[in-house]
Amino acid sequence: MAKIKTIGVLTSGGDAPGMNAAIRAVTRAGICNGFNIKGIYRGYEGLINGEIKPFTTENVSGIIMQGGTILKTARSKEFTTPEGMLKAYETMQKEEIDALVVIGGNGSLTGAKIFAAEYDVCCIGLPGTIDNDLYGTDSTIGYDTTMNTIVECVDRIRDTAQSHERIFFIEVMGRDAGFLAQNSAIASGAEAAIIPEESLEFDQLARFMERGIRKSKKSCIVIVSESPKCGALYYADRVRNEFPDYDVRVSILGHLQRGGRPTARDRILASRTGVGAIEAILQGQRNVMVGVRNNEVVYVPFSDAIRTDKPLDMKLIKVLDELSI
Amino acid sequence: MAKIKTIGVLTSGGDAPGMNAAIRAVTRAGICNGFNIKGIYRGYEGLINGEIKPFTTENVSGIIMQGGTILKTARSKEFTTPEGMLKAYETMQKEEIDALVVIGGNGSLTGAKIFAAEYDVCCIGLPGTIDNDLYGTDSTIGYDTTMNTIVECVDRIRDTAQSHERIFFIEVMGRDAGFLAQNSAIASGAEAAIIPEESLEFDQLARFMERGIRKSKKSCIVIVSESPKCGALYYADRVRNEFPDYDVRVSILGHLQRGGRPTARDRILASRTGVGAIEAILQGQRNVMVGVRNNEVVYVPFSDAIRTDKPLDMKLIKVLDELSI
Amino acid sequence: MAKIKTIGVLTSGGDAPGMNAAIRAVTRAGICNGFNIKGIYRGYEGLINGEIKPFTTENVSGIIMQGGTILKTARSKEFTTPEGMLKAYETMQKEEIDALVVIGGNGSLTGAKIFAAEYDVCCIGLPGTIDNDLYGTDSTIGYDTTMNTIVECVDRIRDTAQSHERIFFIEVMGRDAGFLAQNSAIASGAEAAIIPEESLEFDQLARFMERGIRKSKKSCIVIVSESPKCGALYYADRVRNEFPDYDVRVSILGHLQRGGRPTARDRILASRTGVGAIEAILQGQRNVMVGVRNNEVVYVPFSDAIRTDKPLDMKLIKVLDELSI
Amino acid sequence: MAKIKTIGVLTSGGDAPGMNAAIRAVTRAGICNGFNIKGIYRGYEGLINGEIKPFTTENVSGIIMQGGTILKTARSKEFTTPEGMLKAYETMQKEEIDALVVIGGNGSLTGAKIFAAEYDVCCIGLPGTIDNDLYGTDSTIGYDTTMNTIVECVDRIRDTAQSHERIFFIEVMGRDAGFLAQNSAIASGAEAAIIPEESLEFDQLARFMERGIRKSKKSCIVIVSESPKCGALYYADRVRNEFPDYDVRVSILGHLQRGGRPTARDRILASRTGVGAIEAILQGQRNVMVGVRNNEVVYVPFSDAIRTDKPLDMKLIKVLDELSI
Repeated sequence: MAKIKTIGVLTSGGDAPGMNAAIRAVTRAGICNGFNIKGIYRGYEGLINGEIKPFTTENVSGIIMQGGTILKTARSKEFTTPEGMLKAYETMQKEEIDALVVIGGNGSLTGAKIFAAEYDVCCIGLPGTIDNDLYGTDSTIGYDTTMNTIVECVDRIRDTAQSHERIFFIEVMGRDAGFLAQNSAIASGAEAAIIPEESLEFDQLARFMERGIRKSKKSCIVIVSESPKCGALYYADRVRNEFPDYDVRVSILGHLQRGGRPTARDRILASRTGVGAIEAILQGQRNVMVGVRNNEVVYVPFSDAIRTDKPLDMKLIKVLDELSI
Repeated sequence: MAKIKTIGVLTSGGDAPGMNAAIRAVTRAGICNGFNIKGIYRGYEGLINGEIKPFTTENVSGIIMQGGTILKTARSKEFTTPEGMLKAYETMQKEEIDALVVIGGNGSLTGAKIFAAEYDVCCIGLPGTIDNDLYGTDSTIGYDTTMNTIVECVDRIRDTAQSHERIFFIEVMGRDAGFLAQNSAIASGAEAAIIPEESLEFDQLARFMERGIRKSKKSCIVIVSESPKCGALYYADRVRNEFPDYDVRVSILGHLQRGGRPTARDRILASRTGVGAIEAILQGQRNVMVGVRNNEVVYVPFSDAIRTDKPLDMKLIKVLDELSI
Repeated sequence: MAKIKTIGVLTSGGDAPGMNAAIRAVTRAGICNGFNIKGIYRGYEGLINGEIKPFTTENVSGIIMQGGTILKTARSKEFTTPEGMLKAYETMQKEEIDALVVIGGNGSLTGAKIFAAEYDVCCIGLPGTIDNDLYGTDSTIGYDTTMNTIVECVDRIRDTAQSHERIFFIEVMGRDAGFLAQNSAIASGAEAAIIPEESLEFDQLARFMERGIRKSKKSCIVIVSESPKCGALYYADRVRNEFPDYDVRVSILGHLQRGGRPTARDRILASRTGVGAIEAILQGQRNVMVGVRNNEVVYVPFSDAIRTDKPLDMKLIKVLDELSI
Repeated sequence: MAKIKTIGVLTSGGDAPGMNAAIRAVTRAGICNGFNIKGIYRGYEGLINGEIKPFTTENVSGIIMQGGTILKTARSKEFTTPEGMLKAYETMQKEEIDALVVIGGNGSLTGAKIFAAEYDVCCIGLPGTIDNDLYGTDSTIGYDTTMNTIVECVDRIRDTAQSHERIFFIEVMGRDAGFLAQNSAIASGAEAAIIPEESLEFDQLARFMERGIRKSKKSCIVIVSESPKCGALYYADRVRNEFPDYDVRVSILGHLQRGGRPTARDRILASRTGVGAIEAILQGQRNVMVGVRNNEVVYVPFSDAIRTDKPLDMKLIKVLDELSI
């Protein structure tokens, strides 16, 4: 393989706070180690269409604390087709981009894995997703910020829940992973969490009700993981039907969970993995995601990182149960 | 009228950040001036049912920065009936409460006005509502905090709106008053606000579209005042139908707008009007709302305060129009 | 006077949160009304040295929520000399700048007043200072944000003060004006404020001690206005000497009071006065500061705005006294 | 050893955000598992003097999000003497406290270790310190919050540093450990950190200057770990002497670093280790600190936890160097 001179960086999929800190780290560590850096706009779309700009340290100045991504992001259907991948590869050749740093979640790293296998290009992934559903890293870039945003929102809602003595079902993001719901429930002192990982037989709402909603407590907060089938509105309706004397409200936190200044921890994770991506390239690593485990930077093969079974710690259910008595 | 010895304080209607600071101010200034203070729970409900507790300075210690209301709040249907008012009056006699300080919004002060007229009791109102729809005071307790909460949420949503280049319709509280929508749109740098005060003929969304959504801008934010008829979901659907190539999203901020630590300004307003309520009683004032106008504490007769025509400053529409080019 | 075609905008003196929102408003409202806008860097220094750049709406995009000033700021000694003013005037002629919008505090507006008198140029001022010491406007741009920053810091310090049962003297900015100290003391529930406006005979610390520090309270917070002679360190030493069994600590908040995202209110004030500056120019106004009084935009002659006697509301001392019992 | 029926809980040493969440977790998990819980006030002082109160779940309601410690805290000299320890032991017998949960840092756990050895009592420690200097746990309760507080302050100071083009030396807590300085420097995008762990020969300030302060950058931020010998003031003076044309400022963040609402992560760590303390007692563990490593709850013998050599990750220096170019 020829020596790598130019590295392209892109953000892809759902945006996450800390992506800018990652772009900054890749750019600065890259330049510091003698590489040219090119910013690719709108994820794989921009790679296909050639929306690309050379980056200097100036381009990433003052962005470490900004939410969102200055490179924009998108979900590219075209990149999932052979024609799209070919165009992307041709852009790389035309722009003389030798390696790609992809900052994104499960879908984006899956794309990188297939692209790298097909065209034998060097792809390095960074775990950029609020969902924390990538395997091989203790946390993903954006997860800590989103968790704190949720907790701050729940703190606010509790003020009004207690004042009016209401039951609130609060729906949070997380797609198929309950990390955000489970952990933000513990952190916010919520009374219960309803998460996709627990089995259907084990009806969480029923269990919660058996324990007696508002037994001694006058108000209560239930965190619900978003779900196409049964989100917060569904559970609120069920409680309203079965317990008509409760004053039940719903809050769907929505897109505000994606934005905001990244926390210290997300900025550090983004900085370390960004520097780690350049080190990986220098070491001749290919097609790995850079993560942090046990406070050490690690390289995780794409196929491991995107395994769909990152397990939720079931002991956390016990923690929530004991602390919400 | 007999000398006032004991003052009851209650919060009523929708909760607002700063209500606790107001309870603290009434209690401490009252005690400081020789009165007994009694806390009445759950608004007029507690006055009817006798949920009342003597308050010392200790009861209000450490609450100035807490959202919600330690006295709880409720909307009382019973208090709108002659029987309910009679019970409330009897509780006052039994508890030897000579004067009532009511912290609440339009509905709560209307209740106080009728009660005071019917039973010749001394009622003093404090403007406690996030809606800013009381006449005679430059601001209401809670309005500044809620506006800052909204602006913080919009700042977050803009991060993701820009990253994905989307149009967001963000629905905010305010009931029949557009203060929150109009001012938070200016403060957040939104592209437009849709408020109930503007006439139907003058279609705000159409005007906004004529000016060309996303003309030069790739993303855009529209703040929508909540409304039973046509909220953010309605406008989003209209845009989706008429402009199918736009990526449109909706965020309904909901109850988190009610909570949170009050801002400095709301704490000061609550403290000054709380002290002002006790001064009003010492001066023999009755049946007035305490407000702050032009940085001076003022007493506003209930009938003036609850006038339904507090006007929105139409010049602000020009400010928003010029600054969102 | 010739028709005004090009407007220069600069920020001068100590920076204040909301200055960027003001630059944005002047630029956009100016362009919207047909003017050319030029950004002048580093205050009057840049006017003297010709550090000037044409501004489009793009230059001020995404800055409404940023602290500091993108135009940089400085205190210019040279501009206080006749030679400096002449150079500044020559730059204006060379750059064809017909009017100047100066965003700054007392010193900066004094400079504008003298310059405007000397060279017959159109100067419009915006009240940009955290100190709130300009006459004719209810508030200055930055004051509300700084007050909230202080209150947030005091909230934090109270946590540790109570846990360790200590007396804290917290020094805040404000130069010769006690607005920040007095109002942040009320808003944070502090036990006392020591401000420059109260007379020396009336020893505030002595009064505070007579009332009995920590009588019933175990911890206590005193807000001290910065002062060359006797700041927080001085008072802490006095208490340590006279009351050796107290555990006394000092916190000097310092420059963090100047930064941070502006509050909703500062952004709105900056937006309204920025639009007002352009309106003033269109109306043929000259040499006035744009302020907001009683919720109306007003034009205040420079000589009035910089009067040194903006009075502190002495009733606020009573509010603080009664509420800290 | 007799069966444990009653558990006492105390906080000791410097307060840290999240201590209340830990008290809540110990209390609720304790009660949930059939123990009696007693709250001990003012750390070991209260154990010596018998300042003790039975705790129900109500006592810890609504405290998960509060900074500081409702149990108060102190550094007890008396407890370091044999007489003090004896008194503490006698109180435990009198109050029938069978086991002690100590929430604190290095000094507090050292005290627990000696006490447990001397009197054969069951002591369980929780890592409650902002300094992150305990061995065997990935993080300590309070560290994440303090790091975020510092980063927020630096974000604010950068606004004014950039506007005025100044060099700021910002002093942060951390005693003999540079974790806070090193990591907050990375997270805030600071240009350098000066930490106690690096050797004296390797003069960090000199290195920083050689690289050229303000080479291309007009403003710069240096984070300095507090130190009795040479803090931020010392370094600022050196730079002022050697580079008199720089505009150098100092900010000592001080006690505000200790307070504030705990972050999600600190609340979760406190909740998990608090539940873990009760599990440890149920399992018959004694004289261990409960920590979290690699996302698993672990028990660390006191003698390991208080080892003084918890190493700073020297790779982080490289991260900071590469990213501040």
